[in-house]
This record gives sequence, C-alpha cells and structure tokens, in this order.
Amino acid sequence: MRRSPIIGVMGGSQVPSDIEQLARELGQALANEGWIVLNGGRDAGVMAAVSAGAASVGGTVIGILPDKDLSRASPDLTIPIRTGLGDGRNVLNILSSDIVVALPGSAGTLSEIALALKHQKPLLLLGWMTSPIAFSGEDTVESLHSVHQIVERIRELLSAQN
Amino acid sequence: MRRSPIIGVMGGSQVPSDIEQLARELGQALANEGWIVLNGGRDAGVMAAVSAGAASVGGTVIGILPDKDLSRASPDLTIPIRTGLGDGRNVLNILSSDIVVALPGSAGTLSEIALALKHQKPLLLLGWMTSPIAFSGEDTVESLHSVHQIVERIRELLSAQN
Amino acid sequence: MRRSPIIGVMGGSQVPSDIEQLARELGQALANEGWIVLNGGRDAGVMAAVSAGAASVGGTVIGILPDKDLSRASPDLTIPIRTGLGDGRNVLNILSSDIVVALPGSAGTLSEIALALKHQKPLLLLGWMTSPIAFSGEDTVESLHSVHQIVERIRELLSAQN
Amino acid sequence: MRRSPIIGVMGGSQVPSDIEQLARELGQALANEGWIVLNGGRDAGVMAAVSAGAASVGGTVIGILPDKDLSRASPDLTIPIRTGLGDGRNVLNILSSDIVVALPGSAGTLSEIALALKHQKPLLLLGWMTSPIAFSGEDTVESLHSVHQIVERIRELLSAQN
Repeated sequence: MRRSPIIGVMGGSQVPSDIEQLARELGQALANEGWIVLNGGRDAGVMAAVSAGAASVGGTVIGILPDKDLSRASPDLTIPIRTGLGDGRNVLNILSSDIVVALPGSAGTLSEIALALKHQKPLLLLGWMTSPIAFSGEDTVESLHSVHQIVERIRELLSAQN
Repeated sequence: MRRSPIIGVMGGSQVPSDIEQLARELGQALANEGWIVLNGGRDAGVMAAVSAGAASVGGTVIGILPDKDLSRASPDLTIPIRTGLGDGRNVLNILSSDIVVALPGSAGTLSEIALALKHQKPLLLLGWMTSPIAFSGEDTVESLHSVHQIVERIRELLSAQN
Repeated sequence: MRRSPIIGVMGGSQVPSDIEQLARELGQALANEGWIVLNGGRDAGVMAAVSAGAASVGGTVIGILPDKDLSRASPDLTIPIRTGLGDGRNVLNILSSDIVVALPGSAGTLSEIALALKHQKPLLLLGWMTSPIAFSGEDTVESLHSVHQIVERIRELLSAQN
Repeated sequence: MRRSPIIGVMGGSQVPSDIEQLARELGQALANEGWIVLNGGRDAGVMAAVSAGAASVGGTVIGILPDKDLSRASPDLTIPIRTGLGDGRNVLNILSSDIVVALPGSAGTLSEIALALKHQKPLLLLGWMTSPIAFSGEDTVESLHSVHQIVERIRELLSAQN
C-alpha cells in the first residue's frame, strides 16, 4: 500500500475508565507505527480517547462525524469529516477502514461489528470480556487481549495485503 | 396513529426454505391487519418472501432498496424507495419502521438488530434458534415463536402508543 | 408499469402563497390520476402544500424526511420515510421518483434539479419566472405553465415508458 | 483554527484539458499553503487533476469516494474516504469543506454549488465563462479568474474566521 494504512477503532461513547485508558494506549501505539487512526469523531468515550492518544504522538486522526458541524467533535481530530448523516455514518466508519478494531461498546458498536463482518473487513476485538455476538459467523472474529497483540496482528495483516 | 403503522421486517437474503415460508406467512398476516410492511426491497430471501406474502392479500409494501434503480427489486413492492446508498440504507429500514421484526439472517440483519436497539425501536425476534446477540442490553429483546404471537404483540404495542 | 407511478414534487420550504396554492392544486391533480406523490416530507412550503392537496382527495403521499423522527413531518403523509440523513436525503427524493416536477425554491430545490439532470430523470419545471439554471445542459429542461399541462405531459411520459 | 483548513474543490469528471491544467495548478497552490485539499476522489477530470497537483508537492488529499472500494479512486489520495453512498456523498463534499472552490462541471458540480449555498459555506467559482446558476441568491457567489486570486481570497476568509 502506497498510502498509510487506515485503522478504524470502534467502541462506545460511554465506557469505564479502564477502557478509555486502553483506547488511549491503542491510539498512541497505532500512530507510533505511522498508521492513520479513524473513528466516529465525537468528543466522548472510546472516540475521544483513541483520538487523544494518537494526537499525543503527532498522529493523523480521521473523525467520521454524525453531525454536519464540529459542535460535538473531539478537539484532537486532524481530519474531521462532517457527514450530517447521523448513524447513517456508521457504514462509512467501516468502509473507510483497511482494518477494524472494536473495543467494548453497546448497540452502535455492535452495528459496526456487524457491518465489518458484512463487508469482510479484517476485524479484531480488544478488551471484551465475552463476545458481543453469537451467531454462525462468530468464529471468524479474533479477540485479542493487549495493545501489543493488536499491533502485531495488524502488522501481519498488512504484510499479507502487500 | 392516524396513518397506517409501518412494520419493518428484517432478515437474511439467503435463508432456508422454512424461514422463507415463515416470512411469507408473516407478510400476509401483517397486511391482513391493515399494516404497511417495510423491508430491504431486494428480490431475495426474507425480503422477497415477506413482500410476496403481503402483496398476495393486496397489502402495501415499502422496499428500501440499496440500489439507485429497480434492477434487483422484488416485483411485489408497491412503494420502491431507491436510495443508491448501499448498506447505508440499513439505518433507514429501522428509522422508518414503527416496530421492527427480525427473522434469521447474517451480518446485515445483525446490523439492523443493533440499530433497532440503538434507536429504541420496539424489536421482536421471530424464528431464531438462539439469540443473535450476547451483550448487556440483550435481555430487552423479545423472542417470539409464531406469526400469531407476533401479530398479538404488535397489536399490544400499537395500543400502548395510542 | 405494474405499480402506481411515483411523481416527485420539489420546491422551497418558504414560498409565496400563490406558489403554495399551485402546489396544492398540483398535489390534488396528481392524486386524482392515481399517481403517488413524493416530496421532502416537512410541514413547510411546497412540501406541506402538495401533501395537503394529494391527501384532500385520498391520495398516497410519500415524504422523504431529513429527520429521524416525525417532529417536523407534514400531518398529510401516508408513507413517512424517516432517514436521519439531513440534506443527504435530497438524492433519495430524485432517485425514488419516476418523474420529477420542480416548483420554485432556493438552493435545496436547485440541488434537486441538478441531481435530476445528473440521473436523467424526466424533469418538468412549473411556476418559474426564469430558469433557475444557466449551463450547457439547460435546454433539456422543460418549463410548463399550468397544472393541466403538467398532468398532460406526465401522461405522455408514462405512455412512452410502457 | 488549530487543525489545517480543508479546501473542497468541485468540478466535472469530464472537462477540457485547460480546465484540468487549472485544477492541477490549484491543487499545487493550495497544498503549498499547507491547506488540505478535499475532492470527490475519483480518477477523472477535476478530481484527478487537483489531487495530482496537491500530491506533487506532498500535500494531504482527501477523496470522498462514491464507491465502497478503491477501484475508481485517484492514486494520489492520501486519505480515501470510501462511502458507498453514490451521489449521496455530494453533500459530504460540501459539509466537510471549510471553503469550497467550484471549477466548471455539469449537473453533479451544480448540485454541489447548490448545497454549498444551502449550507452557507464560503463559495468561490474559478474558470467559469458564465455563471452556472441564475436565481435570486446568485449575486452572493464570487467568481474569480486565477489561482492566485483564489489563494488570496482564501487567506482573507481564513483570517476572518480566526
């Protein structure tokens, strides 16, 4: 890939502080690899934390905002994409990512996990205690347990694509 | 509600024949109540079967198509909505329904179940052997076992809204 | 065409009362022909007037709403399509219409006229003093001067499609 | 503005070679100012030319693609946003830009000019022989005649926003 890979990070807008901390570390680690971080752009939960982590080391952060303006955007976005589509933007989060990482969240995150499966995007779960889905395609979803493992796995996936 | 209620029926584009048969019966039963049936509009799986069932008794059938034309549309739609949005139209399937019924399907259906939970639409599962989701909000999803039960439950939900 | 034709009516949300009156007459005339009327669904301007006209004679009225709920919807819609897409829904207004009629409006209406040209939908202007567009494709847009002329022209276009 | 400004450049997918040359010079000039260039992302016409110009001097180029993959994308995009929305993405082109420049094009470009007016985005025309629109709001659209003038005007607009 000539351009920098885009790693989408999904996750809830209201999550416990340990998940926020994990998202911050993930954002920092992804940006340190030179990868672009994409998320839902709002100034809340996993979105805000992963953006802050990536920005703290000078990374590029794309936020696919549900809104038509920046009123609820994280201040750490370098590329705010204002869609005005509401949750209609969830499918863009997935389609625009080369690889998707899903941290814990609720129904919005679940819709993004489902869309990643639908569009056959490489999908990695991080920080889930139990799998969020329980249906026949489930066994294809990898669940990893540390930021380090995620970075290693993304490196492998990117090598395989080249 | 002054206008006729809109009942959205979700489900896979490739399903076993017994699920297609269930979808056909459901479409017929919903239309017999005078309710408008909404689905994803394509000429495949649950979409085609529920449309055929509703049309067989003269019902109104809205199809929210992913395409910008009618090339893949069910011939039984009375109101084809051509969106050109691809899977970006899934959120419209949910938002435009007053009540959502989900039959078995795979990742696309799962994304619609998640979006129904996200937007707090009344959601009824029909024909699932096991729950497709496994997360904290799960216990709010009702799983029913016959077309008759679905119709009864929708009647109750509509009465409560009036 | 086996199903009823869908005639999209575009126009401003703030227009003079004579244009509202024209829209009301148009809605009534289209519904009297058995055609389905589609518009942007809001309770304002041309949208509200054409919906009221069609509803007054028992017609079917599809409203493609920018909102995810009915808070700003015309009470005369029989099929409210709640999109949550904001102005992202304008392209649906055009794609879902078999024939488009554009009454006076401002920038939103102009975007719909442009999208109708882009997607080669039959496009009829009604009630414009001067053409809203001035570019090379302009001469392909028909401008008519009465509801009667519009109905006659739509009849011709529909015959040609069958 | 803490982040780099995003300048959206609209224009046709099939344009004369002098317009392509103008688009290339514009892309180069905008990137030389440190501004991010946004366009419709396809490998055709003004989109391809402005992307190539910006990339030739190491600029950041966002492409808001109508497709769900990169099959028709310009190779010069650094940030490809894959939407899968078809022309439903036109509204994103406008909403995500801080300032919009419109080069000659046909109906798609006209829809974007209309949406820029609708959303009150600063809008500058470049390279048009005659105005593409002819309606009451028209006099608010600035038409400029060189890349140099565009850069000067954007500088003024950005100063005024800070």
